[in-house]
Amino acid sequence: MEPPDFTLTAGPTAASSRVLQALGSPVIFDYDPVFLERFRDTERKLAELMRTKNDVVLMQGEAVLGLEAAARALIRPGTRALNLVSGVYAAWFGDWLRDYGAEVIEHVVSYDEAIDPADVARLLDEHEGIEFVSIVHSETPSGIENPLGEIGRLAQSHGALMFADVVSALGGTDVRVDDWHVDLAVAGPQKCLAGPPGMSLISVSERAWQVMEDNPSAPRGSFLSLLDWKHKWIDGGRVAFPYTPSVSDVNGVNAAISEVLDTGGVDASIARHALAARATRAGVRAMGLELWPKSDDYAANCVTAVRCPEGIDVASTLGHIRERYGVMLSGGYGELKEKLFRLGHMGPAARSLNPLVAVGAFGRGLADLGADVNVGAGTEAVLAVLSEARAAEATAA
Amino acid sequence: MEPPDFTLTAGPTAASSRVLQALGSPVIFDYDPVFLERFRDTERKLAELMRTKNDVVLMQGEAVLGLEAAARALIRPGTRALNLVSGVYAAWFGDWLRDYGAEVIEHVVSYDEAIDPADVARLLDEHEGIEFVSIVHSETPSGIENPLGEIGRLAQSHGALMFADVVSALGGTDVRVDDWHVDLAVAGPQKCLAGPPGMSLISVSERAWQVMEDNPSAPRGSFLSLLDWKHKWIDGGRVAFPYTPSVSDVNGVNAAISEVLDTGGVDASIARHALAARATRAGVRAMGLELWPKSDDYAANCVTAVRCPEGIDVASTLGHIRERYGVMLSGGYGELKEKLFRLGHMGPAARSLNPLVAVGAFGRGLADLGADVNVGAGTEAVLAVLSEARAAEATAA
Amino acid sequence: MEPPDFTLTAGPTAASSRVLQALGSPVIFDYDPVFLERFRDTERKLAELMRTKNDVVLMQGEAVLGLEAAARALIRPGTRALNLVSGVYAAWFGDWLRDYGAEVIEHVVSYDEAIDPADVARLLDEHEGIEFVSIVHSETPSGIENPLGEIGRLAQSHGALMFADVVSALGGTDVRVDDWHVDLAVAGPQKCLAGPPGMSLISVSERAWQVMEDNPSAPRGSFLSLLDWKHKWIDGGRVAFPYTPSVSDVNGVNAAISEVLDTGGVDASIARHALAARATRAGVRAMGLELWPKSDDYAANCVTAVRCPEGIDVASTLGHIRERYGVMLSGGYGELKEKLFRLGHMGPAARSLNPLVAVGAFGRGLADLGADVNVGAGTEAVLAVLSEARAAEATAA
Amino acid sequence: MEPPDFTLTAGPTAASSRVLQALGSPVIFDYDPVFLERFRDTERKLAELMRTKNDVVLMQGEAVLGLEAAARALIRPGTRALNLVSGVYAAWFGDWLRDYGAEVIEHVVSYDEAIDPADVARLLDEHEGIEFVSIVHSETPSGIENPLGEIGRLAQSHGALMFADVVSALGGTDVRVDDWHVDLAVAGPQKCLAGPPGMSLISVSERAWQVMEDNPSAPRGSFLSLLDWKHKWIDGGRVAFPYTPSVSDVNGVNAAISEVLDTGGVDASIARHALAARATRAGVRAMGLELWPKSDDYAANCVTAVRCPEGIDVASTLGHIRERYGVMLSGGYGELKEKLFRLGHMGPAARSLNPLVAVGAFGRGLADLGADVNVGAGTEAVLAVLSEARAAEATAA
Repeated sequence: MEPPDFTLTAGPTAASSRVLQALGSPVIFDYDPVFLERFRDTERKLAELMRTKNDVVLMQGEAVLGLEAAARALIRPGTRALNLVSGVYAAWFGDWLRDYGAEVIEHVVSYDEAIDPADVARLLDEHEGIEFVSIVHSETPSGIENPLGEIGRLAQSHGALMFADVVSALGGTDVRVDDWHVDLAVAGPQKCLAGPPGMSLISVSERAWQVMEDNPSAPRGSFLSLLDWKHKWIDGGRVAFPYTPSVSDVNGVNAAISEVLDTGGVDASIARHALAARATRAGVRAMGLELWPKSDDYAANCVTAVRCPEGIDVASTLGHIRERYGVMLSGGYGELKEKLFRLGHMGPAARSLNPLVAVGAFGRGLADLGADVNVGAGTEAVLAVLSEARAAEATAA
Repeated sequence: MEPPDFTLTAGPTAASSRVLQALGSPVIFDYDPVFLERFRDTERKLAELMRTKNDVVLMQGEAVLGLEAAARALIRPGTRALNLVSGVYAAWFGDWLRDYGAEVIEHVVSYDEAIDPADVARLLDEHEGIEFVSIVHSETPSGIENPLGEIGRLAQSHGALMFADVVSALGGTDVRVDDWHVDLAVAGPQKCLAGPPGMSLISVSERAWQVMEDNPSAPRGSFLSLLDWKHKWIDGGRVAFPYTPSVSDVNGVNAAISEVLDTGGVDASIARHALAARATRAGVRAMGLELWPKSDDYAANCVTAVRCPEGIDVASTLGHIRERYGVMLSGGYGELKEKLFRLGHMGPAARSLNPLVAVGAFGRGLADLGADVNVGAGTEAVLAVLSEARAAEATAA
Repeated sequence: MEPPDFTLTAGPTAASSRVLQALGSPVIFDYDPVFLERFRDTERKLAELMRTKNDVVLMQGEAVLGLEAAARALIRPGTRALNLVSGVYAAWFGDWLRDYGAEVIEHVVSYDEAIDPADVARLLDEHEGIEFVSIVHSETPSGIENPLGEIGRLAQSHGALMFADVVSALGGTDVRVDDWHVDLAVAGPQKCLAGPPGMSLISVSERAWQVMEDNPSAPRGSFLSLLDWKHKWIDGGRVAFPYTPSVSDVNGVNAAISEVLDTGGVDASIARHALAARATRAGVRAMGLELWPKSDDYAANCVTAVRCPEGIDVASTLGHIRERYGVMLSGGYGELKEKLFRLGHMGPAARSLNPLVAVGAFGRGLADLGADVNVGAGTEAVLAVLSEARAAEATAA
Repeated sequence: MEPPDFTLTAGPTAASSRVLQALGSPVIFDYDPVFLERFRDTERKLAELMRTKNDVVLMQGEAVLGLEAAARALIRPGTRALNLVSGVYAAWFGDWLRDYGAEVIEHVVSYDEAIDPADVARLLDEHEGIEFVSIVHSETPSGIENPLGEIGRLAQSHGALMFADVVSALGGTDVRVDDWHVDLAVAGPQKCLAGPPGMSLISVSERAWQVMEDNPSAPRGSFLSLLDWKHKWIDGGRVAFPYTPSVSDVNGVNAAISEVLDTGGVDASIARHALAARATRAGVRAMGLELWPKSDDYAANCVTAVRCPEGIDVASTLGHIRERYGVMLSGGYGELKEKLFRLGHMGPAARSLNPLVAVGAFGRGLADLGADVNVGAGTEAVLAVLSEARAAEATAA
């Protein structure tokens, strides 16, 4: 089988030419002065992207590693945690919290809705002594975005540590670590940053570090240890790694972040993602299909989730579209696997007419399999949204 | 300004990942045994692609070099030449023929039509002693394809040398050098082969070599000399070049040709181009626009030429589409510059939903500028053609 | 500062052009059929390289991850373990074993010597009920190679599970997982395979899987979990990953392994490393310096460790060589940090005259800083060894 | 056969990682605004490198094209030309001059010597009306550098047009087009700039343009035409090319020139080449071999030419070194083919310990074949020169 022509998935998403070149640049020794400086430069740029003065840590391993490392480091038996669940990933995170001994208060909403900050305020008031609040900012499996800003402020005002999974949010929607009082945030490079899928990008507040230091069950001397990075790398003056970093992945992540900063900055990147999402939603709706999120107010910028029409099988439809049109889209994930499709618009896929390709391939593929879809209306709508937006930008400029 | 997201032009066209990697592979010495063998391998594979047992020559310089080199080598003052003109490039070729002293009988048809073999037969009968017949197989500037096969056979039966510019034909439409008795064919790697735009790929029959040897005005000791390649490289046993070949370009061309051969072979490549052309034409027509070629019978597989609608300016429309949508299309060329647009579908651009992107960007861009275009009908039509064709393929397989 | 011209370190080592191109090839979706097949292909090729029919697991994270994952999975409180220590890494591994609750019998030899199988036989006889034997096959920090083959057979005959860290051994020296009854081996791609430094390459015997299944403290639902790979990926038919694999790292590892298999196979790779090591040792000795290993019988093929001469500071010497000559070498590691230098000859660095560069830069650098070194004798000796070996090969062929 | 590990030849020479990445970057349309600007940027940077305010022209085709194009454009039947010959290339250039009708006064010195400006002064005085003086600045085939500065000033003071082949000089030795009154200079990217071997880099003075305009035999409407570039590209405002430029080659050349400018500038590049040449000469002499140039005063910075010792065959020695050691060196060229070896030190090959590799491989290879060579003394001498120079630099800085 030939490689796909378009990768418009929920991630890993297609990387840009600049990222690919960085990934393919010479592998040098991790203690070479040039690499040490590149590593530090990546940290500085990541902090800029996250809008934070906190320490950042670049762990080698996709974001699941960072999430697990953070949970293990911050949770001790008995930690009172409020876990906010509007999707698959947050539910899984709750399992971890319980595994590590937390007393978890779980607030679950339907997976096609977002968390309401009013509920969070109420819960924080009702349950005394909550030390830890966790949320998934952007639920990639269902394309739902939660209001992290408001919730972060609520957590802070209640004295709780705020933890946020911003894996698919960073670069695609606003993430303001400092303004929003996020104590620990974990991002992934393979989503809106369109970097390689091999690292966890983590910001850690002073307070979060302290919680870890005070936590006897926080991993130490382990691949999962954030504290090892603190003690060896940060406190040691950023000259010695706790283990060998992946030189090529760091090269790729540096390029991905630099590209965002160099092409209009993070705001321009967010705007690109928001527009691509808007155009995709318009296309999907115009085809007569139903979006997964109940409201556009919380539809994510990274992927557009679409309810699977009656009588259609997700996996075989994706296989059909891949085989016939060379376009790779995503289905659901976890318990939502058979319920929805996802059209990704992250990184390069958020640019230009990639949403047209996603909507066109999706609609035509469904039609091939007998679904009642107005392909022409869908593709037309995508282009109409893009056209209007660009015209407005041009007028504004 | 940021680089384009889609290059769907009349060439240079976007190269595949495999070609780019070959271009970026280490530059080695041209007399390194590995490079010598790669050069010979490129020749063998090119011959396979051209379906010929003739010698092939890889000259360093885009196809214009090969065309000039061929004309200078084959034409002596007084050569009786029949130049068949259905487009800009053939007209230019005629200028060269006259410059080099040929007595040129020029048969010109309207640039939106193809040459009719019956006319060629008649002309060959009418004008005694024609030694040289020249044609452009696929007129990239206007998207017209001429029936080289029939004309080649006519030339042969009349004892004339057949010269063909197959620059944008090779890999995109059938080119059968031996079956069609083409004595000298010049192809370009940057069109349907989607290689780098820096070489001329030339096949030369024994008879063509003899004409050059007998021609005192054929270049010798010159960058333009085909005979230098014959004498030094071919006759010398393929161990010494007349000048330094471009190692990186040869690497790229080798990869481009190998990719065609490895992904279904030349027939599959032709089928991809034909389908992309068909889908593009359907899309353009459904939008209410007029194709440049008067008949689909001779619409080229490499680019689809579209008449510029009334009141629309070609250059500013292209600029608008590039700026707003990140898509680069082509306009006319030479005297046709302001008369038409060209949507390219060569190499990677002939694959997957690239025709949808071309038609969508083109239609939406025209609509933005006030043209009366049915964008939705156009994009729907592109997808319908692709869908049907893929379904038919699947049934056949 | 400019990048190094030569990376001749203890790893990450310089990657080949083929590996770099694979790292820079398009990032595709991990569930794209092309990537799924590439992942499986990488597994099959890794098994071939490891000479095993056991399952192999490709974990995302440098070898430290694989080592920790294996130790956590195989050790339960009370496991009777024999840890064989001839270097820094084995000592660290012992700490892990104790951390996870094993009763560790530790056999330590001087770090400039190898483990003697006779001692292992004696210890296995003396200490009844040893369930687990662990060893570092090739101690990168000190360039010592242990006789894994004999020890593996001893472990097996005593019914103990054999664990081997073959991180810097695989591809550079013989590793015969099945013949030697190695139940779990962890290799690294960034050493003799010269791949990217972001993965753990692990073979697991049926028996080792069983031990994990029976071990309640083996990680489950964790980035550190080998069992997750067994249950989700292997038992599930190799269609679903426990977490997103690093597409680019897998591409790079596939290329690295394929390159070994395609250029003479693993035996040729081992021979290259052995020769480079021999030439380097000859050069170092001829310069009047002392090798770290007491005997060449157990000097490793991956790096040559050299005792730091009196009055010389390791770190500043390395800095001097890097700055003056653009050559990056390694110093010691852990407690050996200030005691030795390491000249790496892994992957591309084991080829051609890279040992000459290593020895020349090292000797000249030391001489610059006042050490008494015969640079000319050293470089001459390197070349003499290479010349003789190549001549012998040519005679044999 | 495997690719070479080291390419230390007379060119094409190994390209840097940055150049390779540029060569492998996406191929875009030549009329894309991004490419148009990159083309202009390349011109500006080239002019900076050549230290000129003259127009520069980037022709597609290795330097032989530029040399032929220049000669054809500047020479008309009857042009009185003084051709200064100290090597193979200048002799060939004289053939061209005569072919195009010039009355050539040829001043030939032994090919192991440089041109003496005093002779040039005398000849210009003796032969009235000399309109054209031609010289090869750096004779790559024999490693001889001519004093272009003084000769350029002499030509100017006598009213003659100064033509210089600076193909292997630019970037490796001082080339001051304006200060030295060089009317037309042709450089190559694949020598000291270490770019791809597919372009001619040409500077043209106003006076040279005028000579071409006045020359009815200057090529027009041809791939060989400099005037086409003047009329279409330069005079037209740099928006339209006379033919399709090689996008990938231009990308590579831009990177090569930018790399020189970004890593210390042209003076630092020259210093690197001069030092590598000095170290190589010292190594060759210390081995007991004889340099080709009679004096170091005019030994070139790009390659070191060494007389072939008695009883040694050049071609088989090169083959032996390539096969045994993976190092590609060069032999002689043209009539000097069997008389000398050339060790290249251009671009990356001029950096770090590449001269050690060249001298080591060369000396050891000769010794293998029975030559009396002191390999250790040679390699030691290379390192001694590099050490001293770096120490002096460090002191100066």
